[in-house]
Amino acid sequence: MMQKVYLSNYELDEAIKMYFEKLGEFNPQTEKIRTWDANGRVTASAVFAAISSPHYNSSAMDGIAAKSERTASASDRNHVILTEGEDYVVVDTGDPIPREFDCVIMIEDLIKAGENKFEIYQSAVPWQNIRPLGEDIVENQLIVPSRHKIRPVDIGALIAGGINEVEVFKRPRVGIIPTGTEIVEPGTELKVGDIIDFNSRTFSAQVSDWGSIPTRYPIVKDDYGKIKAAVQKAIEENDIVLINAGSSAGREDFTSYVIGELGNLIIHGVAIKPGKPVMMGVINNKPIIGIPGYPVSAYFVMEEIARKLVLAYQGLEAEEPAKVKAFITRRCMSSLKYLEFVRVKLGYVAGRYIATPLTRGAGATMSLVNADGVLEIDQSIEGIEAGTEVEIKLLTPEEKIKNTLISIGSHDPIIDIAADLIHGRNRKFFLSSANVGSTGGLMALKTGETHMAPTHLLDMESGEYNLSYLKKYLPGKSICLVKCVNRIQGFMVKKGNPKNITKFEDLTREDVKFVNRQRGSGTRLLLDYNLNKLKIETGKINGYYREEFTHLAVAAAVESGDADAGLGVYSAAAMMGLDFIPVCNEEYDLAIPEEYMETEIVKEFIETIKSQEFKNKLDELGGYDYTNTGRTIYQRS
Amino acid sequence: MMQKVYLSNYELDEAIKMYFEKLGEFNPQTEKIRTWDANGRVTASAVFAAISSPHYNSSAMDGIAAKSERTASASDRNHVILTEGEDYVVVDTGDPIPREFDCVIMIEDLIKAGENKFEIYQSAVPWQNIRPLGEDIVENQLIVPSRHKIRPVDIGALIAGGINEVEVFKRPRVGIIPTGTEIVEPGTELKVGDIIDFNSRTFSAQVSDWGSIPTRYPIVKDDYGKIKAAVQKAIEENDIVLINAGSSAGREDFTSYVIGELGNLIIHGVAIKPGKPVMMGVINNKPIIGIPGYPVSAYFVMEEIARKLVLAYQGLEAEEPAKVKAFITRRCMSSLKYLEFVRVKLGYVAGRYIATPLTRGAGATMSLVNADGVLEIDQSIEGIEAGTEVEIKLLTPEEKIKNTLISIGSHDPIIDIAADLIHGRNRKFFLSSANVGSTGGLMALKTGETHMAPTHLLDMESGEYNLSYLKKYLPGKSICLVKCVNRIQGFMVKKGNPKNITKFEDLTREDVKFVNRQRGSGTRLLLDYNLNKLKIETGKINGYYREEFTHLAVAAAVESGDADAGLGVYSAAAMMGLDFIPVCNEEYDLAIPEEYMETEIVKEFIETIKSQEFKNKLDELGGYDYTNTGRTIYQRS
Repeated sequence: MMQKVYLSNYELDEAIKMYFEKLGEFNPQTEKIRTWDANGRVTASAVFAAISSPHYNSSAMDGIAAKSERTASASDRNHVILTEGEDYVVVDTGDPIPREFDCVIMIEDLIKAGENKFEIYQSAVPWQNIRPLGEDIVENQLIVPSRHKIRPVDIGALIAGGINEVEVFKRPRVGIIPTGTEIVEPGTELKVGDIIDFNSRTFSAQVSDWGSIPTRYPIVKDDYGKIKAAVQKAIEENDIVLINAGSSAGREDFTSYVIGELGNLIIHGVAIKPGKPVMMGVINNKPIIGIPGYPVSAYFVMEEIARKLVLAYQGLEAEEPAKVKAFITRRCMSSLKYLEFVRVKLGYVAGRYIATPLTRGAGATMSLVNADGVLEIDQSIEGIEAGTEVEIKLLTPEEKIKNTLISIGSHDPIIDIAADLIHGRNRKFFLSSANVGSTGGLMALKTGETHMAPTHLLDMESGEYNLSYLKKYLPGKSICLVKCVNRIQGFMVKKGNPKNITKFEDLTREDVKFVNRQRGSGTRLLLDYNLNKLKIETGKINGYYREEFTHLAVAAAVESGDADAGLGVYSAAAMMGLDFIPVCNEEYDLAIPEEYMETEIVKEFIETIKSQEFKNKLDELGGYDYTNTGRTIYQRS
Repeated sequence: MMQKVYLSNYELDEAIKMYFEKLGEFNPQTEKIRTWDANGRVTASAVFAAISSPHYNSSAMDGIAAKSERTASASDRNHVILTEGEDYVVVDTGDPIPREFDCVIMIEDLIKAGENKFEIYQSAVPWQNIRPLGEDIVENQLIVPSRHKIRPVDIGALIAGGINEVEVFKRPRVGIIPTGTEIVEPGTELKVGDIIDFNSRTFSAQVSDWGSIPTRYPIVKDDYGKIKAAVQKAIEENDIVLINAGSSAGREDFTSYVIGELGNLIIHGVAIKPGKPVMMGVINNKPIIGIPGYPVSAYFVMEEIARKLVLAYQGLEAEEPAKVKAFITRRCMSSLKYLEFVRVKLGYVAGRYIATPLTRGAGATMSLVNADGVLEIDQSIEGIEAGTEVEIKLLTPEEKIKNTLISIGSHDPIIDIAADLIHGRNRKFFLSSANVGSTGGLMALKTGETHMAPTHLLDMESGEYNLSYLKKYLPGKSICLVKCVNRIQGFMVKKGNPKNITKFEDLTREDVKFVNRQRGSGTRLLLDYNLNKLKIETGKINGYYREEFTHLAVAAAVESGDADAGLGVYSAAAMMGLDFIPVCNEEYDLAIPEEYMETEIVKEFIETIKSQEFKNKLDELGGYDYTNTGRTIYQRS
């Protein structure tokens, strides 16, 4: 029953061309709908006006319709008197011009000369102030061409041209089948191993954005017979079927075998990353696409392949996205085996676009949320060096990127809060943050990738915060240090502190599992400073090498029972319902180059963190001291 | 009862600010909806993850979950044997990692060593190939901020983060009331003086594009009581009301008085053109906008004012549209009384954008269909000289403009046909034409505003077509002349030729009304050539000074009975059901600078007019000879 199918490695364009050629027989279907229901629909044929607009000669002014020859002798010195009915009729704007008259004289140029009479003091030329029949639209004139996406203004012109029904391409029905034994509906009580189905919901929203009508089917377990039945049903009920295949080899096979049995699997595997295991098949002349399970792989297969198909069914081609030139901040290696799509965060700093590659994991849904653009690394290229200027396909409008304050550096949940508040205060501004630790932030300032760097770096010798690091990492740069908050760092432990962890020495106990922050972060430095002072060997701490990138991630590891303790801020512990054993106070400040201090966006940001609203949020979170928040505490020129 | 309202002349920004301040109390309402129904909706508050994703430590590979300490001594020379259950369990990608294991070794690095045993030859480090809990999303992490328009990828991340319901701004309900005694529904048998209502349909499509729910009410006659009743009902049933006031003074008053009586008319008149007579009022704390009747005025009031309001109800601000720099082809005068919006057609010719102002009449719905952008002339500026570089707000994507072939010159209905066909052949290409007559086209070639100029200019001395004009108007330019068609020109007369018009002499008859083409057009030249040859005085022709810009417009004037005869091509007469008396054959050719002949778009155009499909269309229209169509008949270097 099962035919063996080999994974191919076609280039993307070649694969799409092959597939579309196989699908060649599919004819986009059309339907006639009322013009006023046609917004966003695509014309199947050119539309020509059925009537002229205006459909009669009409007055362009309030005044009188007159005979121009009767006015020929009128001048300042020789007023001419016109008589109603005989020489003129009164007309308002839009009124029809009776056949016997050939011009309109506007009310401002008339002198009342008794009942039913006007005096005029200048001659009128034929057709003056008349909107002739067809001035706007002439019968038989082209209004919109075929394959044109109808806009509101087109609806107006079509109706004005007497077109009350238009022939448009049908919106294809797209069936979406989620599969996988481990896949559960959102809202299900989660067991370990369960994966919530969200891909099918993203697909539904995508295809509906592309103009088609999605139907999402129930989740199908990994069972050949059930998958086959689901595919048969979806093929019957739709024009296009998308099946969200699992990501492991075994599960993919089910899908590919089902497509092969019911129809024809044309392509299995395309040289793109992520997205390689895509399947493209045909059943009963209808396309079926097997979308990989990982969300990021799924995204690129949807955008690069499914989208073109859904649009083609409506007579449309995908428009080229807008692009910008940007400098890439990190080296990007890539395989010669694939065309690679790298999600990037874009910043507009000091007059140039800066692109920072986001995590390349195929499971990272947040990287899709955070991406502002996509860098395509061609199959023929092995990698791109940091600092290279590259072309980025935009996902976020340029205008928004240019109004986004970039914050790269140490993580604290209050940066998210500030991001939300600044946009609430002034809708044009946004804040985008990346958590790379305090030293990473200072390096990003040095290379001009960020507007500001949140930092809490403890000088091991002086015990002073931040200043010595600015001098060390950014010599010769004019940097201001703006007070953000003083905050409490401490041990985050399970509710009730079951392992009774109260001091650094406890971390070396056999029964204690620790979870650490990444190198370069201020919190890691704080740990190392204390371990060093207490002469505790790092190797003695179980979990010292397990690194997380945010306070929240550390708290989550403790909350889940994976670890017994981590070092972090009070607010993160409180959010996760953990107990907190204070270790010290520290200064969490913002390093901002002097040149940005007077920009509108930085000033708005400083106003934001000075605001009562922000302080209220800090009080809600707890563990923050905002006495000097927003004050410039150091300025070096 | 009626309070007198004066027309004000506030600046646009000032008026909007004033109005929004008065509306200050309106609170955008919110609602909770299911996340998977939230595409395109706007978050009312920041959304933080409810659960981590993955919500357990999971395998990133197919392989075995093992204890890293058991692998420490493994090397190429010292294989270590692991036993199932004790040292490892088999895991697939996505499977949970049991608490006692801390790393995953992938299947490629395992050597089968009998039942339930694997040999390994390298050590594993803790957390290798494990996707830790929260790797993608950590509980309490910000997923999307407030006032964020939810995209398909956001839906995925929200569901992954355990958010199955989101609080979003309600889509405002917008009531739309068309008014006017002369206004009739589309499809009504038209009487002279009737105006089809299409504005309300355009408004509905616009507000729905902006995310709100339109309700269009029946047309209300110009009757104070009826307008008042309609407004009361609409205010009750909606969040925002748009009333399409008539354009004449009397009718506006009804609307303004009704608003004044039921609530508060805050602004009546804004210093914009078109759009000046806009009204902004409040009734029961709900905004009501009186939109002027002329479609173009209505369009700018909708875009510049109503749009901001509809978006504000959803917590959004209007995004700045994309802009390009372009050279303006014609002088644009403007009043110091207004901020003026000028619709322009954009072309991309020889590496620069060229903006040609479209007709400025407020009734020109086709100018909205044809516009690619808008030039704003500031109130402080009296005009802009031809050739000035200006900033244009884009209505058409840049990509489309760059792929549009510009044709400026003589009109023939077949240019519309070719426009439709070239886009059908290759979806990326478009053709845009402007009818300015043959000589206008040659001037546009000279100034670099067009890629080609259709032309049919008869040399009065030699009787030869086009060539002498190329030499005269474009000396020193390398121009190719491509044969388009030979076509028949003649008199267009009413069916049955009731006035028996057969020769130029007949045009001077007292009982004959003529309709002419504009100066500079080839057809006008043809007329003048013949009149001159026959020594007929133009002053003797009744209607010689009535000018239309296209063959179709001339045909429409004859068809309506406004004129008895016009000169034009056979196809236009046939389309309008007119009789046609041939006068001569003429050569309708395309002048194309040599530099464009090898561009992809010009080559595609020439293939289009050579195609059988095009010839079939010409046969349908009749009156065209396409023997040499597409052949270069003259090339001068």
